[in-house]
Amino acid sequence: MIYQNSFTVRTIGRGTTDITGRIEQIARQSGIRTGLCHVFLQHTSAALVLCENADPAVRSDLETFLSRLVRDGDPIFRHDTEGDDDMPAHIRSILTDSSLNLPISNGSLALGTWQGVYLYEHRTSPHERTILVTVFGE
Amino acid sequence: MIYQNSFTVRTIGRGTTDITGRIEQIARQSGIRTGLCHVFLQHTSAALVLCENADPAVRSDLETFLSRLVRDGDPIFRHDTEGDDDMPAHIRSILTDSSLNLPISNGSLALGTWQGVYLYEHRTSPHERTILVTVFGE
Amino acid sequence: MIYQNSFTVRTIGRGTTDITGRIEQIARQSGIRTGLCHVFLQHTSAALVLCENADPAVRSDLETFLSRLVRDGDPIFRHDTEGDDDMPAHIRSILTDSSLNLPISNGSLALGTWQGVYLYEHRTSPHERTILVTVFGE
Repeated sequence: MIYQNSFTVRTIGRGTTDITGRIEQIARQSGIRTGLCHVFLQHTSAALVLCENADPAVRSDLETFLSRLVRDGDPIFRHDTEGDDDMPAHIRSILTDSSLNLPISNGSLALGTWQGVYLYEHRTSPHERTILVTVFGE
Repeated sequence: MIYQNSFTVRTIGRGTTDITGRIEQIARQSGIRTGLCHVFLQHTSAALVLCENADPAVRSDLETFLSRLVRDGDPIFRHDTEGDDDMPAHIRSILTDSSLNLPISNGSLALGTWQGVYLYEHRTSPHERTILVTVFGE
Repeated sequence: MIYQNSFTVRTIGRGTTDITGRIEQIARQSGIRTGLCHVFLQHTSAALVLCENADPAVRSDLETFLSRLVRDGDPIFRHDTEGDDDMPAHIRSILTDSSLNLPISNGSLALGTWQGVYLYEHRTSPHERTILVTVFGE
C-alpha cells in the first residue's frame, strides 16, 4: 500500500521550521500501520533535518556553526548569481539532507522522544518550498 | 511484505560499533529476498554511517577529523546542558546520518565489499541507543 | 511491486557525473507509477548527491569547498595506503551520501526543476563504480 501527498511551506528566510506535525498528519491520513514515511524536498538550497526538539538553542547553535563553516560571500565561490548566500545554500543542503525516511509503527511516526523534523531554509530570503511525502507499508 | 524489529546497543562513549552482523541477521529473519532494509536511530546525538570496514584507522581518522571540525566546548555554542560534547554531538549527528537504507538482493544485504554499517556514538559518555529496522520487499 | 537493476560508471577521477538520465531510465523500466527509487552506491570513497543542475560552477565550487575542508595529505590522517586522497575520500563520502531515495509520481522521478542526480567520485584517479537501483511502488 502506498500513499503520496505534498505540501508547501513559506519560509521567512534562513532558519528552521518544525514540520513534524504536518508529516505525522500525512502519515496518519495514509492509514498505514507499519511502514516508512519518505519526506522529500524538491529544492537544492534548503534541507530537511532530524534535530533535537526541546531546546531552541540547539537549532541556533547549528546555524552559528554552519554559517562559520560555509561563509556567505566566501571569495572561493564563483556561483553567486542570486547573492552571497546562493552557493553556501547549495553546500549546506548537501552537508545536511534533502530527504528523510521515517519509520511508522502502530500507525504513527516512530521517532525518538527528542527527535523533531525540521525544514531548514538555507537562503537568507523567504522562499516557497515544496515537500513530497510518500508513505508505504501495510 | 514488511518486517519490523528493533535492538539496543550500549555504547562505551564516543566512537564506532560495527552493527553490520545485527542488521544482516534481521534482514535474513524477514525472509525478504529482494527489497530494502531501513535502519533508523532514534537519537539526535549519535549516528549511523556506512564506512570502510578493513582498516580501523579509517574510523579513528574520521573521529580525529570530526573532533577538529566540531570542537567540544567551542565558545560559540550556547547549548551545553549536558556538557562540552552535547552540542557537538547534535551537529555531528546532522553532518553524518541518523538513518540508512540498504538494498537486499538474494536474501542478504547487497553491500559493497568494503562497506560496513556502524553506530557512531557522538557523546563522550556511554549511552543506550535504540535502532529500529524496517525491512520490506518480496 | 519491486524492481532491481544495477549499472556501473567509469569515473575519470575526482568530480561529478550526471546520472539523472540513467536513474530515470531504470525508474521507467520498472513500470511503477507511484513509489520510490532507491539509488545505492556500493563504495565508501565516492558518493551520490542531489545538486543544482543548471550552472556547472555549482559543482566546481562544491569541489573547491570540500577540498579545502578535507585536505588531501593532511598529516592528521594515518590511513594513506592508497595515497594522499584515500582518507579524504572516505570522509567526503560520509559528509555527502552513499544512497538517495527519490520519489516517483506519474511514472517518473518527481525531482524539483533544479535537482540533478550526480555520482561524485572522491578519489583523484579513475574508478569503476557500481550503483544498485531498487524501485518499489505500484
